[in-house]
Amino acid sequence: MSEPGPSPALVADVFARDCTSRSAFEDVTAKWASLTLIALHEGGYRFNALRRRVDGVSEKMLSQTLQALERDGMVSRDVVTTIPPRVEYALTPLGARVAARLRDLADVLEEAVPEVERAREDHRPR
Amino acid sequence: MSEPGPSPALVADVFARDCTSRSAFEDVTAKWASLTLIALHEGGYRFNALRRRVDGVSEKMLSQTLQALERDGMVSRDVVTTIPPRVEYALTPLGARVAARLRDLADVLEEAVPEVERAREDHRPR
Repeated sequence: MSEPGPSPALVADVFARDCTSRSAFEDVTAKWASLTLIALHEGGYRFNALRRRVDGVSEKMLSQTLQALERDGMVSRDVVTTIPPRVEYALTPLGARVAARLRDLADVLEEAVPEVERAREDHRPR
Repeated sequence: MSEPGPSPALVADVFARDCTSRSAFEDVTAKWASLTLIALHEGGYRFNALRRRVDGVSEKMLSQTLQALERDGMVSRDVVTTIPPRVEYALTPLGARVAARLRDLADVLEEAVPEVERAREDHRPR
């Protein structure tokens, strides 16, 4: 967003439509962004390896996701000067803090599979 | 999803396209779902109050969001037998665990506003 944000003296609020924290929240929870951040929490990845890790993402969507996360300061794109040079994506310190929270959330949902399946079963039309 | 899921003996994996945890992860991070869960983490809400709290959500989107969260066993819809009766939405125990993780994530992003704004500034085309 290019409008001047709220003054830094104001308290950030993820519920406020114009707060930077709200758009950042939406960016990190966007369709492929969360899985990308959780994958990078395991370590740096090259583009194609990351694409294989984030099962189902297209080349275009992964590329757009990485650009948005770079722009928000969550992901860095590092060119390693090998021959041939290679590009590696990694979390910034901020990205690592965010990814740790997303990993916690994923842990809750992985543990909750039986509960979620039971709930879905109960909600199925008979 | 109505296909039989992976056997419960298999480890749930948010990266696996067919895992219930992956679709549940997508449901709770969907456009309005996270803010709805974080709002309900503050306490039960009636529909219209919840709609005011989740700044920007339409009636239709909030209604769809609540239905998806009910179906996954995250939110309960309780009819309070006052005159006139009123309907209140609240978190289930599972929804509360999920909402706590989302609130942690929101906290990180609210604290990170200066960092995110600096990163966006650095990425702006000159």
